[in-house]
Amino acid sequence: MLSIVSTPIGNLEDITLRALRVLKEADYIACEDTRVTGQLLGYYDIPNNGRLMSFHSHSGFSKMDKIIELLKEGKEVALVSDAGTPGISDPGFVLIREAIKEGITVTPIP
Amino acid sequence: MLSIVSTPIGNLEDITLRALRVLKEADYIACEDTRVTGQLLGYYDIPNNGRLMSFHSHSGFSKMDKIIELLKEGKEVALVSDAGTPGISDPGFVLIREAIKEGITVTPIP
Repeated sequence: MLSIVSTPIGNLEDITLRALRVLKEADYIACEDTRVTGQLLGYYDIPNNGRLMSFHSHSGFSKMDKIIELLKEGKEVALVSDAGTPGISDPGFVLIREAIKEGITVTPIP
Repeated sequence: MLSIVSTPIGNLEDITLRALRVLKEADYIACEDTRVTGQLLGYYDIPNNGRLMSFHSHSGFSKMDKIIELLKEGKEVALVSDAGTPGISDPGFVLIREAIKEGITVTPIP
C-alpha cells in the first residue's frame, strides 16, 4: 500500500494520529528532502531506522521504479512532501499515477 | 478566542494533536449533540467536566448570545460539529459570523 501522508505546513501540532501511526509503521518513507522529513520524525520521536528514501523532481524514473517494485513486494510505503499534502506542487503525482496504473492500493491520510 | 475544531468523519485517528489539545484546554465546547461529542471526548480520554454546551439549528439567538458573552469575558470556546469541519452544513456559521462582528478572534483548527 502507498499512503499519501499529509504533514504540517506551519504548526507542528497540525498532524493527525493516523498520520503519526502510518509514519511509525511504514517500511519506507519516500520524501522530497530526507533532512526535512528526518527532523519532522525526530520532533515526534519516530525512529528513522534508515527508512527514508529521497524522491523529488530530479529523482528520475529509476527511483520511481524502485518504489513501485517495493510496493509490489508488499512493502508499506508512505509518501510525504516537505510540508502539506503530497501531490500538490511536488512530484508525488507521478508516483501516485504509476501506483494506480499498477493496481497498488493508494490511501490518502489527512 | 473561538476555535473552530475539525473532528473525524469516519476514522477516529483522523484528528490532529492541536485539535486534541484545544478540546482539552477549552473552557467550553459548543457542539451539535452533547452525546455525540461526549463519546468522542471519551474515546480520547479527554474529561468532559461539564464543559459541553449544545448549539444546534434549534438553539435560537439566546444560546448564541450566551456563547458570545462567554467569549467576551475571555473564555476559550471550542466549536465542533457532530463530525468534520464546523461551518459546513451546520449552524456554526451564524456563531462564527457573530463572533467576527464582535471582534472576537476566530481560529480554525485543522
